[in-house]
Amino acid sequence: MPKKVDPQERRRLIADALMRVAAKQGLEAISLRHVAAEAGVSPGMVQHYFRTKDEMMMFALAVVGERSQTRVTEAVARLGDNPSPRALLRTMIAALLPLDEQTRDDGRVALGFLAYTAVRPAAASALREETAQTLGFMAGLVPSPKPDEAAAGLLALMEGLGAYLLGGQYSTEQALSALDAHLDLLFGSSS
Amino acid sequence: MPKKVDPQERRRLIADALMRVAAKQGLEAISLRHVAAEAGVSPGMVQHYFRTKDEMMMFALAVVGERSQTRVTEAVARLGDNPSPRALLRTMIAALLPLDEQTRDDGRVALGFLAYTAVRPAAASALREETAQTLGFMAGLVPSPKPDEAAAGLLALMEGLGAYLLGGQYSTEQALSALDAHLDLLFGSSS
Repeated sequence: MPKKVDPQERRRLIADALMRVAAKQGLEAISLRHVAAEAGVSPGMVQHYFRTKDEMMMFALAVVGERSQTRVTEAVARLGDNPSPRALLRTMIAALLPLDEQTRDDGRVALGFLAYTAVRPAAASALREETAQTLGFMAGLVPSPKPDEAAAGLLALMEGLGAYLLGGQYSTEQALSALDAHLDLLFGSSS
Repeated sequence: MPKKVDPQERRRLIADALMRVAAKQGLEAISLRHVAAEAGVSPGMVQHYFRTKDEMMMFALAVVGERSQTRVTEAVARLGDNPSPRALLRTMIAALLPLDEQTRDDGRVALGFLAYTAVRPAAASALREETAQTLGFMAGLVPSPKPDEAAAGLLALMEGLGAYLLGGQYSTEQALSALDAHLDLLFGSSS
């Protein structure tokens, strides 16, 4: 007789397998077949929890988004009370850059999704709202006569640094130096 | 009897089909089957010219690279003699951003390749050399006490602007304003 499996637990098993496939083989490699093989279950079982590839991709992106949010919150909390705007921005961006194994895994999923939205812009609506929120937050921190433009540049710089870190075009040191040089420019100092 | 087809012409036909698939459906959608269907030939015929998916992807990237180079050269030539370093950088970056249909098609291929190298960094070796060259060129133009860091930031900003333009997170106006605000910072003026 088949043993009884907790549906919640099985969902987590399949979700974890989905995230491993996305991180190691790329978001485009997500399929019922790949995820089922990784989880050691049947494709039909995967389909019970995720009906389409789009559903699986959106799930992976949501997981990455939540993990990123947690990382930023924790890193900012470590700054203590009343951090400077520069320290806040630097900490937030560094927490989002792919600098260790977990953030690299997450970064691959996020970059894969960016490439996907470039081909299917309709899928970007979720991202657009998140982008607007991040921009608003950053604009409130940059001491610029054009805060919206400065925030848009800073976020784009972060995204580009992340892509080049993942592909190995930039080393960790190069990326962080470029970020600090940019913050020097924005904050008008070389601290 | 089958009519005689010029191999050069057939290669171009297949290459064009490959580029259309990459631009419209994403680099990951490139396959013998898709390219054959797009070109109206058999998969075996495609395989005669491109043996593997990697070969097709490298070809698409090379085509995009050549077209980008041509666009930059032409745009810079239009500046006339002795353009300012700022005008040179602005023109070069604007020529590479996905702002019209052709550059958007090319940008999708380039972003797809970035996402691919994030999963398979070995494939990035070709990109790394190109990146280093571009960085060297930019570093020679930025009036910064830290030219290498400033160039690395500027290139990352360009890459991020491109990704957000393709996904629709940034409008053309937003992206160009962010670029100009960044050049204002770098060149210490608001010209």
